[in-house]
Amino acid sequence: MSSAAAAKPNPELIFGTLISYQHAFALKAAIELDLFTAIAEGNTDAASLAKRVNASERGVRILADGMTVQGFLRKEHGKYSLSQDSAIFLDQRSPAYMGAMADFLVSEENIRNFSQFASCVRKGGTVSSIGDNSKPVDHRWVGFAKAMGSMAAPVAGALSQMVSSNPSAGIKILDIAAGHGMYGITVARNNPNVHVTAVDWPAVLEVAQENARKAGVADRYSIRPGSAFDADLGTGYDYVFITNFLHHFDIATNEKLLRRFHAALKPGGKAVTVEFVPNEDRVTPPMAAAFSMVMLINTDAGEAFTFAEYEAMHRNAGFKNTVLEAPPDLPQRLVVAEA
Amino acid sequence: MSSAAAAKPNPELIFGTLISYQHAFALKAAIELDLFTAIAEGNTDAASLAKRVNASERGVRILADGMTVQGFLRKEHGKYSLSQDSAIFLDQRSPAYMGAMADFLVSEENIRNFSQFASCVRKGGTVSSIGDNSKPVDHRWVGFAKAMGSMAAPVAGALSQMVSSNPSAGIKILDIAAGHGMYGITVARNNPNVHVTAVDWPAVLEVAQENARKAGVADRYSIRPGSAFDADLGTGYDYVFITNFLHHFDIATNEKLLRRFHAALKPGGKAVTVEFVPNEDRVTPPMAAAFSMVMLINTDAGEAFTFAEYEAMHRNAGFKNTVLEAPPDLPQRLVVAEA
Repeated sequence: MSSAAAAKPNPELIFGTLISYQHAFALKAAIELDLFTAIAEGNTDAASLAKRVNASERGVRILADGMTVQGFLRKEHGKYSLSQDSAIFLDQRSPAYMGAMADFLVSEENIRNFSQFASCVRKGGTVSSIGDNSKPVDHRWVGFAKAMGSMAAPVAGALSQMVSSNPSAGIKILDIAAGHGMYGITVARNNPNVHVTAVDWPAVLEVAQENARKAGVADRYSIRPGSAFDADLGTGYDYVFITNFLHHFDIATNEKLLRRFHAALKPGGKAVTVEFVPNEDRVTPPMAAAFSMVMLINTDAGEAFTFAEYEAMHRNAGFKNTVLEAPPDLPQRLVVAEA
Repeated sequence: MSSAAAAKPNPELIFGTLISYQHAFALKAAIELDLFTAIAEGNTDAASLAKRVNASERGVRILADGMTVQGFLRKEHGKYSLSQDSAIFLDQRSPAYMGAMADFLVSEENIRNFSQFASCVRKGGTVSSIGDNSKPVDHRWVGFAKAMGSMAAPVAGALSQMVSSNPSAGIKILDIAAGHGMYGITVARNNPNVHVTAVDWPAVLEVAQENARKAGVADRYSIRPGSAFDADLGTGYDYVFITNFLHHFDIATNEKLLRRFHAALKPGGKAVTVEFVPNEDRVTPPMAAAFSMVMLINTDAGEAFTFAEYEAMHRNAGFKNTVLEAPPDLPQRLVVAEA
């Protein structure tokens, strides 16, 4: 598309992008201070908020104004109130609370890794020591499990629907690198017919088991501690869930992993991969395409693979009928393949 | 405004804000690797770009895809090209090149300070050692002077117009905390009738003097090294430029400073303050309002003041007829007051 007249030069996108980190740190601070819960409780001006969150009035005023600029709060006559999404996702008392995400997404480690972005581009992978991902890195993955469970809910709903359409009597699910476990746990909670076996490092599985207890499915939740690369996975599963996992590795490694998962499935069982899957142009849709940068920074060889790449990986690992499913209104995609 | 039906809950703004720092580091890396200049030179695919910027092809491909997602590049059939604004502001060969901004805006020091945001809210000011701003901090302000000069051009154009409408014969301008000096220097270049006297720390003034030489106005450029708080400023100026300076201090300190500037002006001379000036609600317009957070993090007591506050400060310092001027299409405002 060419326009008749060129737009006026404007450095705002450049400037705004370079200072965008300020927004991340500001929102993290507001979550850390529990500003949103405090407002929801009825502390709506800077003075009472400051008292409630144990901070200076000047600091709280500037932060709350900043949160208003960013769309998380409203301000009328000097009184702050929550946006609808802040009330749902940032009030600690809400069942859909997501504030814990900030601990992982804006962790010191992630900031440090991203601050070496140019070095990662030169090398073609992370310059940190965490890039291999075949050995346990407890501080990182326990942190992930504790922080990111709330993000799983929408996709877990889509997985529950898929599984509930299965007429089998006792449905066995293998949840690879389960992390917080919330994909398998949610499916088990929604389907009394389901038994989940979770694989992850021992310290991470403690978080998943605690989540399974809280969800009331502990009696249908087993664990197999260890690495997806060499743990005994068992056999005869109806589904293997591979959620946000394959993006950590290169294609050859993923094919090796997928062959192991294929062997664990019963004939006709399904591998269900949850991923950000960019289009073949690798620059759309934005969230999925941009995710490759996160993997460039944090892994040796991972990235957001396209569906053509996933189809080939699954085919080379012995799967058939690989399809891409797009749950409505979600940025993630499901890659579903048959053993 | 109330809508008939509530919007569907969506955590995307929260998630997107928490990962926004990734965009800042990615753009900084692309600038550091000189990716934009390399593309402008005709290296349009990942392989040739990698060779030109001395980086891995995989890293360059992921970065260039990310820059495309963010709107700085276009990608067609695997070939990258610059957006109009990237060609103007991010190609090193362009006279309007602004890439150096990244060194200051995404400096380690700024990242470190922002990563302590919650502590700054608790305290009501910076937790770093740089908050006082009445003593020289060479690494920071020489860095600022070297990085941020390109940002001054649009406002400097507006200042040039203001000064050129002055019928006086020899116009004397005092440039307070001149930094890169580009406000005064640009006005001098556009008005052969102008002599500029710059005040700043000695190491910073070296950058301004170099810029004055490059602009061909060194013979009309004097310096008074030292602090705006206690240097001998001289007298009889037609204008004093106070650019991005008063936001570092509290109101009482600013009144003290403004009294010094008032004494340096000739009767009828004008103080011209360049600032982000939020509306009285302190949450609009976005860029000006959000700037208070930057000052909360980096200073003891500074912020983005409203015009009502600036009017009172100037009045208390002896000025009259203080007005707010909005140069077209710019986020900054001019506060102009008469001695």
